Amino acid sequence: MNAHQRIQRALEAAIARGDAPDAPPRLGQAIRHSVFPGGARIRPQLCIAVSMACGGDDPGLADAAAASIELLHCASLVHDDLPCFDDAATRRGVPSVHAAFGERLAVLAGDALIVAAFETLAAGAIRSPARLGQLVATIAAAVGRPYGISAGQAWECEPRCVLSDYHRAKTGALFAAATMAGAQSAGADARPWRALGESLGEAYQAADDIRDVVCDPETLGKPVGQDVALDRPSIAREYGLHEAVRRFDRMVADASAAIPECAGAPYLRALVKSEATRLVPASWCTDMDRIAA
Amino acid sequence: MNAHQRIQRALEAAIARGDAPDAPPRLGQAIRHSVFPGGARIRPQLCIAVSMACGGDDPGLADAAAASIELLHCASLVHDDLPCFDDAATRRGVPSVHAAFGERLAVLAGDALIVAAFETLAAGAIRSPARLGQLVATIAAAVGRPYGISAGQAWECEPRCVLSDYHRAKTGALFAAATMAGAQSAGADARPWRALGESLGEAYQAADDIRDVVCDPETLGKPVGQDVALDRPSIAREYGLHEAVRRFDRMVADASAAIPECAGAPYLRALVKSEATRLVPASWCTDMDRIAA
Repeated sequence: MNAHQRIQRALEAAIARGDAPDAPPRLGQAIRHSVFPGGARIRPQLCIAVSMACGGDDPGLADAAAASIELLHCASLVHDDLPCFDDAATRRGVPSVHAAFGERLAVLAGDALIVAAFETLAAGAIRSPARLGQLVATIAAAVGRPYGISAGQAWECEPRCVLSDYHRAKTGALFAAATMAGAQSAGADARPWRALGESLGEAYQAADDIRDVVCDPETLGKPVGQDVALDRPSIAREYGLHEAVRRFDRMVADASAAIPECAGAPYLRALVKSEATRLVPASWCTDMDRIAA
Repeated sequence: MNAHQRIQRALEAAIARGDAPDAPPRLGQAIRHSVFPGGARIRPQLCIAVSMACGGDDPGLADAAAASIELLHCASLVHDDLPCFDDAATRRGVPSVHAAFGERLAVLAGDALIVAAFETLAAGAIRSPARLGQLVATIAAAVGRPYGISAGQAWECEPRCVLSDYHRAKTGALFAAATMAGAQSAGADARPWRALGESLGEAYQAADDIRDVVCDPETLGKPVGQDVALDRPSIAREYGLHEAVRRFDRMVADASAAIPECAGAPYLRALVKSEATRLVPASWCTDMDRIAA
């Protein structure tokens, strides 16, 4: 079973845990809609790849940590799409949760996904209970206060913010948690893995800003031009497109360089490279040079 | 230090964990606004009382469990007050979080409170890590799917529901978690404590429905008549006020009878009795008889 299959199975199990014939049916539907078919699943892939690089002695716990992180990512998207935030009608090419199920079920689906993330982690730690405390701490820090996703989104409610603080909280924190939790799920020290997650998170946020400017809505599966429309901080707005791509490339190189030497390093370097190409194809840079010329 | 002081200190510590000089300030303010000064803190009181009745060998973990449960209760109130749900402008006699801080920060405050609840639990389990897994499971079940608060609120989004299922999920589940987590925090079996929490939760929901009809907004600290205005299931609407009070009294008696025999039983019985009197004063019944006559 490859990593993608492991992730899908773990997510399926996490959601099935909340199903019951006498449960309110539409909440379950809204949750499935927000988690499947899903995007690139890069955070959970990263988590599993690091756990394997660290020996992977408890694959069940690695899968639970990976699923937990992806559930939290999905929760943040559902709440981010709400009318009071981005008011996005589409996500991944289909109606956003609030567009399909209404605002109330979108709020509740996000809430229930956050809860399911921690529930999944606890259920996955049966074989290695001593690892649960640090996993909860790592993952909670990535989505809570003062430097996690909630804090990142809260910067959008402040009159001004430092762009790097905003991005680190809104995107970098969960990437860092993905690599660190991967290590912790295997009983390894999380600290050597933080830099990889942080650099990759930075690169992802930069790519997101670039794609918001460059892509059409069909490619993106969601509305474009949102950063300007919502007056949101963006590396592409702050530095211009060309410089933003240059910085993206540097962040990807930093991420690759941050991979600790280990048996899994080549696989991780290949994963970083293929994701970078998927996010910001090299052809775009040529196009941009043409536009700039 | 009495139970109330322990609870306030644990909540203060849980929130302070998310503070930082370089964190977005308004999110922290919104969270404080939603947690302090707070209501009766009955759920955490119940949690601590049961932990003491079970020997209370790890008061730090009992306090963390109590704070976790109260943070989740506060989160549910913040999201329940949102414009898309109850659209309540006041709560506990002051502006609701969305009225004071805007809708976006209310969504984020609720999210961050859910995360803080699990983070608090993990931080509190340092001395007894083997108890963390079951505590996370118990508390997550009380707020997630299929039978926790998210599910309870989701019943409001369905065309019809069974009143008892709705109440059990929206209120009963977190009361049951309060008594069960109290036992688990002391390393005791949670099962004998479930019935107490469930009966008390039922009584609370009934009291809430009754108060929505009987009280004025000043007494309640929030808008009244909401169940009729929002066409929400309510025991007072379904059975009439007099029968609702009769049922409330029976639920309180059930709760008292469900307290397992132990050294802490007299204290717990007194707690149940004083809460019942606070919620639905005996004088109301006389008033209602007069109205009915």
